[in-house]
Amino acid sequence: MAQAGRRPGNSNTREAVLAAARNQFSAKGYQGATIRGIAAEAGVNAAMVHHFFGSKEAVFGAALRVPVDPQRVVGTILDGPREQIGERLARMFLGFWQDTETRAPFLALLRSVTSDDRTAALFKEFVGEAVFSRVSEALGVPRLRLNLAMTQMVGLAIGRFVIGVEPLREADTEEVVELVAPVIQYYLTGTGVDPTIHQAQN
Amino acid sequence: MAQAGRRPGNSNTREAVLAAARNQFSAKGYQGATIRGIAAEAGVNAAMVHHFFGSKEAVFGAALRVPVDPQRVVGTILDGPREQIGERLARMFLGFWQDTETRAPFLALLRSVTSDDRTAALFKEFVGEAVFSRVSEALGVPRLRLNLAMTQMVGLAIGRFVIGVEPLREADTEEVVELVAPVIQYYLTGTGVDPTIHQAQN
Repeated sequence: MAQAGRRPGNSNTREAVLAAARNQFSAKGYQGATIRGIAAEAGVNAAMVHHFFGSKEAVFGAALRVPVDPQRVVGTILDGPREQIGERLARMFLGFWQDTETRAPFLALLRSVTSDDRTAALFKEFVGEAVFSRVSEALGVPRLRLNLAMTQMVGLAIGRFVIGVEPLREADTEEVVELVAPVIQYYLTGTGVDPTIHQAQN
Repeated sequence: MAQAGRRPGNSNTREAVLAAARNQFSAKGYQGATIRGIAAEAGVNAAMVHHFFGSKEAVFGAALRVPVDPQRVVGTILDGPREQIGERLARMFLGFWQDTETRAPFLALLRSVTSDDRTAALFKEFVGEAVFSRVSEALGVPRLRLNLAMTQMVGLAIGRFVIGVEPLREADTEEVVELVAPVIQYYLTGTGVDPTIHQAQN
């Protein structure tokens, strides 16, 4: 699909880069793929890919339709008092699913990673590098605990928004946050959490 | 498909009852369907359905390929010390997914309830009546907390067995039980989560 006369801002060029990125990530994995390789396949130079997207992470996000910016997720986890990490994460994650703009791509992603092993492998690698590694290093939390915090949030999304089990589906967001935040807090900080204490802090 | 000369033990009859049950549950929901209606559609009498299956719950389980007996799940939750409910449930649930015989139907069920609204609605009603109602009543636990315990276990299954995120996928079962049990315990008993106390009790 290479065409002559491409310039930054040309939407055909952008689409060609995204198509090349999907191929390259799919063939080589997240770590194996390079901006240089993506650019070569798209018939543009690497500087143009950098110009459009800024980073491999951003190319991946655009090409694979990642619903949220991992940097924002990491920022939310790390910015603010450590004893409120669980509450911040629970609230942000519920927000993604309540927002109709991010909910559909989250649902599409959930369905593809639970039904397609290749997509699952690709996203595992991406989330591992873009989120888990950074948070694990910054907080000194074992990755197994980060995994488990993620399982609680994925399960919560399925129960509340996908299957819609009652009364969870209709429960007030604040009530859900209050119940789930101590669990995320427990996984991420390794400390025992008493929901009574948690309420008192709010 | 009704045939003359059906007797209990005739596998055609059993198949006809199961096919009728799938139709009836799908059309009327779990509570709306009746053994009488299923028998009528299969061209047998209700006593024969009782003879084959024993209860509407068992007909549902056989017809919709429910991977485990809800009675057994309820029994595991309720039989034994209350302060070890989380550990019992976490261990039982991980066992279902580790056992190759129950894993495949669990995965099939997970995929169908996350992709098909009608199947999701049917199973919500079934699990609500066969599990949540009984446990909620027996333990005096709000159903929202039971919902949340279930979301943790569903998310755990997805993370460990479906997506297979590392290191959760390869982690030792006892380590996973030790980390997750306090969360299930917290949801089901409403007490604070302290992993140190939990470890000391083992």
